[in-house]
Amino acid sequence: MANAGEEVISNKQVIFRDYVSGFPKESDLFISSSTTKLKLPEGSNGVLVKNLYLSCDPYLRIRMRKIDDPNNLFQSFIPGSPLRGYGVAKILESGHPDFKEGDLVWGTTGWEEYSLITDPQQLFKINHTDVPLSYYTGILGMPGMTAYAGFYEVCSPKKGEYVFISAASGAVGQLVGQFAKLTGCYVVGSAGSKEKVDLLKNRFGFDEAFNYKEEHDLNAALKRYFPQGIDIYFENVGGKMLDAVILNMRVHGRIAVCGMVSQYNLQEPEGVHNLMHIVYKRVRIEGFAVFDYYHLYSKFLDLVLPQIKKGKITYVEDIAQGLESAPAALVGLFSGQNVGKQVVAIAPE
Amino acid sequence: MANAGEEVISNKQVIFRDYVSGFPKESDLFISSSTTKLKLPEGSNGVLVKNLYLSCDPYLRIRMRKIDDPNNLFQSFIPGSPLRGYGVAKILESGHPDFKEGDLVWGTTGWEEYSLITDPQQLFKINHTDVPLSYYTGILGMPGMTAYAGFYEVCSPKKGEYVFISAASGAVGQLVGQFAKLTGCYVVGSAGSKEKVDLLKNRFGFDEAFNYKEEHDLNAALKRYFPQGIDIYFENVGGKMLDAVILNMRVHGRIAVCGMVSQYNLQEPEGVHNLMHIVYKRVRIEGFAVFDYYHLYSKFLDLVLPQIKKGKITYVEDIAQGLESAPAALVGLFSGQNVGKQVVAIAPE
Repeated sequence: MANAGEEVISNKQVIFRDYVSGFPKESDLFISSSTTKLKLPEGSNGVLVKNLYLSCDPYLRIRMRKIDDPNNLFQSFIPGSPLRGYGVAKILESGHPDFKEGDLVWGTTGWEEYSLITDPQQLFKINHTDVPLSYYTGILGMPGMTAYAGFYEVCSPKKGEYVFISAASGAVGQLVGQFAKLTGCYVVGSAGSKEKVDLLKNRFGFDEAFNYKEEHDLNAALKRYFPQGIDIYFENVGGKMLDAVILNMRVHGRIAVCGMVSQYNLQEPEGVHNLMHIVYKRVRIEGFAVFDYYHLYSKFLDLVLPQIKKGKITYVEDIAQGLESAPAALVGLFSGQNVGKQVVAIAPE
Repeated sequence: MANAGEEVISNKQVIFRDYVSGFPKESDLFISSSTTKLKLPEGSNGVLVKNLYLSCDPYLRIRMRKIDDPNNLFQSFIPGSPLRGYGVAKILESGHPDFKEGDLVWGTTGWEEYSLITDPQQLFKINHTDVPLSYYTGILGMPGMTAYAGFYEVCSPKKGEYVFISAASGAVGQLVGQFAKLTGCYVVGSAGSKEKVDLLKNRFGFDEAFNYKEEHDLNAALKRYFPQGIDIYFENVGGKMLDAVILNMRVHGRIAVCGMVSQYNLQEPEGVHNLMHIVYKRVRIEGFAVFDYYHLYSKFLDLVLPQIKKGKITYVEDIAQGLESAPAALVGLFSGQNVGKQVVAIAPE
């Protein structure tokens, strides 16, 4: 798109209505049609972008809650304002020396058609476009780096180790499982439907997978799949699953805590009772955040891009079409409606 | 004592009656007078020892429970047999090349006057006797190494960091606090009586201390003592305290889990609800076991012995006299009756 001068155009947005308790509903969000001048403010060193893809990620639920702690990793969304999150966008106008019109980027943007990004230093320029652009909301973006950092950096995996992944068909889990297989580990994943379990076994190459909704006794299920115990647990869900996993960890096991999606919609998080077992087995449980590892992004790309091109790593996306579909797509994450990484396509490239 | 040949003498023992549920009682143990030949069996490469001091440690409670998991760090005591635990002893006869009659050692022995130790490779020879011998059940033995490994190796402390220690006047905690002060940290401890709180502040040099029994809201108490949050938590108690601490951890904080004494006497351990905060703050929680670090023992002695001799590190012991006092001394640990490291003196040196 050429420089749009003082053109005023429609800018549809996904607005956050108010703080949410319990499961989020579509009505906690609404679509608003505002207008925007397609022009950077005078003297701005930000960038004006057209959003192409938005990323639906479980952590967005945390930001729908009122958070009072300024040290928290996550800050609340502002009621009445658009959601913000990871996305893929095209630069329309740049006041920043690192970016120019036409550049493709991924990073934090608004849930709207056009965004003024005032902190463009957090954006990553997209240099490889021989893969689907939507991948930069997933395997080549924040979730991919999360899988990489959590598995390789936090867990220090070794060949032959026993790896368990919850929410294993999601944006992060499917990739952790494939990294674990590349490392020579034995890998089992849990997910919430037969379709997802089939994906894990047939598409992502997990050794085994199970539907946690069909297991009354998670401890027994884990003992069945891991008679020798678990060396590495990639934690995405929390609560009862974590409690059962702790009972099954091996000596010097590692648990990388990426998130706890089963807890986000509860008023009171569930209690985890078996923590003393981390002494019995000398287990490390480590919460991590992807942005502590973004300096490894180019190293990560060097690993993962060739594997994608060789077909050694695959990635399943669930792409909803149009900004109007964004509320349902996001809300659907929390009942597990998505199969694979949930993306919203906003505009053609 | 000279070689006793085939002499048969009395050997009082503290016998484990049966598996315990709830708080242990003195009647869960009993004193038995057996006899023993003061002679190593033919061809044994063990050692025959006279026990001088026995160490009362919270982890012994865990071994009073029925444990079915062979991978557990701890194995159950055998009903009808003497307790086993750390102690200081004198070698009466040795079938092992590393030990000779008259050597002083510390390590795992029986709760009895005389023990045949069939695995003497786990014993440490005592080479420095210009400190109280009982110290080898505490500051110079397993608890000292636990404090050293948990603080320096697991927590990697830095000058100026904020350190919190629970059960802080106990065998391990009092030393962790002093290590933290030597490192230049700000140190707060919790304990269960005014007398112990006074010890922490006046004897061990903690910056602050509080009686957890007088705090209705542990989260509020921690916010009062750590308005900036906690970098390092040395965990000895578990349960509600851990839950409150997690809320107050700083970014990249570390929790070394040494034990969870508040949980040992419960039928069902309490739930810990705030684990998601380890993601918000990127916190590491690590269970550790001292014996993974025993290779550092001589390095540890090089650090701590001079500090003891210079009076820079102090150590408070609570010494019960005589094997008959052992059941009450051990049981008293779980109601916090001991002030400082609980030891039982069995025989004069």
